Parts: sequence; structure tokens; C-alpha cells
Amino acid sequence: MSDVMKDPHIVKSYDRDLESIQALIMKMGGLVETAILEAANSLEARDEELAERVRKGDKAIDALEEKVNEEAARLLALRQPSAGDLRTVLSVMKISANLERCGDYAKNMAKRTGVLVQMAPMEGSAGAIRRMAKAVELMLKDALDAYIQRDAELAEDVRQRDLEVDQMYNALFREFLTFMMEDPRNITACMHLHFIAKNIERMGDHVTSMAEQVIYLATGHLPEDERPKADRTSVDAGRS
Amino acid sequence: MSDVMKDPHIVKSYDRDLESIQALIMKMGGLVETAILEAANSLEARDEELAERVRKGDKAIDALEEKVNEEAARLLALRQPSAGDLRTVLSVMKISANLERCGDYAKNMAKRTGVLVQMAPMEGSAGAIRRMAKAVELMLKDALDAYIQRDAELAEDVRQRDLEVDQMYNALFREFLTFMMEDPRNITACMHLHFIAKNIERMGDHVTSMAEQVIYLATGHLPEDERPKADRTSVDAGRS
Repeated sequence: MSDVMKDPHIVKSYDRDLESIQALIMKMGGLVETAILEAANSLEARDEELAERVRKGDKAIDALEEKVNEEAARLLALRQPSAGDLRTVLSVMKISANLERCGDYAKNMAKRTGVLVQMAPMEGSAGAIRRMAKAVELMLKDALDAYIQRDAELAEDVRQRDLEVDQMYNALFREFLTFMMEDPRNITACMHLHFIAKNIERMGDHVTSMAEQVIYLATGHLPEDERPKADRTSVDAGRS
Repeated sequence: MSDVMKDPHIVKSYDRDLESIQALIMKMGGLVETAILEAANSLEARDEELAERVRKGDKAIDALEEKVNEEAARLLALRQPSAGDLRTVLSVMKISANLERCGDYAKNMAKRTGVLVQMAPMEGSAGAIRRMAKAVELMLKDALDAYIQRDAELAEDVRQRDLEVDQMYNALFREFLTFMMEDPRNITACMHLHFIAKNIERMGDHVTSMAEQVIYLATGHLPEDERPKADRTSVDAGRS
């Protein structure tokens, strides 16, 4: 621990700085939750205006990540935190990077909605995608709660739920393959829908990685078992 | 700058620590370059054993990233670097995260090779993928050279070359759509080939992000113009 950290006034000011960064993370988290839900809703409702709002909204998420990184770097440089505090600050940076990536995926989903509304809808797919997006949004909500409470148990629950998201993705992947084989006119729409499903599956991976950071913060070590397997299509699809 | 940094012996030891982390980055970079090329070669040669080696080799890349993060956190905690040095250490962590992701993509390519060798080859595709992989590998090689030399000009050149990789990806995307429409029996193979092409395109994005870190390190600011556009299929495909 550096000399400056021994002064209780400075310690208090360090806590305050960290809290203000955590507030930025929560704000980012809220925007990303909304972006995920609205991207999926715009697809199901074929609502181009809503999709356009999601696309434009990503700028605010990117700006918040930028701000988190600046504040965290400033905190590290000025306060020279001890090893434990350092870990907290680095985790915050990792979590904000994960959130930023989720925001990018939501934006990409919304872009594809703009293309998909020009084509005939694939029966049932938009609803299945919306349910998958909702599952990831709930994971994200719980990951953020677990982060604020330093609740390793809730974080572990989030981590396990990623397996269900992966199963939803695998089911959709097989469905899209079937649609494409049935009628080649479905191919372009299914390629876009498949990208969207894959983006949601990747958001689940990023939320899982956030949950792992929370476990690290709460317990001092990362989960010991292998991270749950993400995308099994590279092995499964050959059999379908 | 903290007190400890004013002692020239400590400064020297900080430089030595940083150099040893940079050496780990270069080692990671070499492994990732090899993984990219061998993943593409295993696909073209339909060589399952080579693909298996690429898959297994990713563990060494992950372990190096872990080591970079540990060493960087230790350096931050012990040496309490000034703002400039802090930026350098944070950049190193970002670059190692980019390399780790590239390693993951190469591993995923190699997994899909295991599936694709069970199917009839798509004429010309494996060669086109190999050329795309080679372009990204050269970008990575130059990004690593630019990093060591703090050469912003070379990094900017890398960044611009990502546009060519994106064009290669867009051409392949259209080709796969055509193959699938021509014959539904091509669909499964084309879905996997498309994933592989997309993975290489994403590696290009990660190498671009490394190049941007180098520009930041060399000049003190990120490139001002918008980052070159990555994947245009979300808008183009609707027209194809």
C-alpha cells in the first residue's frame, strides 16, 4: 500500500471515486439492457423506427465506456491503489468492456432488422429470438445486481443460465438450416436471423464473463470449473 | 509521479519488468500468427491432424494472456507507474486481450475444419479463405513490429489494410449465398465456411484495434477518423 493510501481522507476519496465509476457501470448496464430488449422487439414488431433508435443509442453506451476507462485510469494514476483495490478497478474496466461489446451486438441486430423487414418473415423465428434476448437481458440484470452486492452465488447462477441460452441458440441454428434447405428463397433472411441469434449467444458469453469477474471480486478467485461451453454448432451441425 | 518512481534504480527495474511483459506479448503474437496460418492451411489441405494441433495449441496462448495480466497487475501494484507508464501497461493488457481473441477464432476455425472434411469441398473457397487468413497474418506481423518500434505510420498502414480484408469477406459472403441458392446440399458446408470467413474478418478487427493502441502509445491519441467499417453484409446483403 502506498503512502497516500494510509491517509483516511484519501481512502475515503478513493471510495468515492470508485463509487462514481460503479454508477457509470450501472448506467451503461441499464442502457444495454434496454438496447437488447428493443433490438429484439423491433425485429418481432418489424418496427424500423425502433431499430433506428437502438442503432443511434449505441453512441451513448460507447461514450460511457470511454468515460469509465478515463476515470479508472485517473484513479489508478492519482490514488495508486493497493493490490486489492487495483483488482477492483481492473474488474470495472473489464466489465465495462463486456457491456460495450453487448451494446455493439444489439446495434448490429438492429441494423439487420432494417434489412429483414424488406423480406418475408420466417414463421416463429422472431418470437424465439425475442425469448432468447429476454433470457440474456435477465442474466445481465442479475449480473449487475450481483456486482453491486458482490454476490458470488447470484453470479454463479447467471453463469449456469448461459447454458440455456446456448441451447436456445443451437435449436435456432438447426431451425434455420431446415428453413434454408426447404426453400432457397429463405436463405438470405435465415443468414441474417442466424447472425442475430449468434449475436445474442455472444452477449450471453459476455454477461457470463461479467459474472466471473463478480465471483473474482467476491471470493478472490475465478470459478474453478471450465467455463460452460458456448457454441456447439461447430461439432453438432455436422450431424444434423 | 510517485516517490518510488524518482529512484533511478526503481525506474530501471520498472523498464525491465515492462520489457519482460513485452517479450510475452511477442511470444503470444508469434503463436497466434502460426495458429491463423495453420488453421487456414488445415482447411485447404483437409488435414485433420493439423487442425487438431491448432485446437490444442490455443491453451498455450490463453496461458500467456493470463501471465501478461498477472505481470501487468503486479507491475501496477508494486511500481505505481506515472500516467504515461500506466497507459503503456493498460495498452499491453488490451493488446494481449486482442491476441487471445484471435487465438480463440483460430481454434474455432480449426474445429469447423474437423466438420468440413466430412463434406464435399466448395470449389475455390478454401483457397480464398487461405488468402484472407494470410492477409490478416501479415497485418498482425506488422502490428507487432509497429508495437515494438512504436511506429505509428506502420500501425496506420495496418489499419487501412483491414478494409481489404473486409472486402475479401464481403466477396466470400456473396459467394456462399450463391452456392447455397444453387444447391441446398451446399448449405451446411457454406454455413461453416461463412463462420470461418467471419472469424477471420473479426481477427482483422482485433488486429486493427491493436494497431490503434500502437498509434495511441506512439502519438498520445487515438486515430481521429472513424475506424474503417468492418462488416457491410448487414446492409449489402439485402441488395444481393
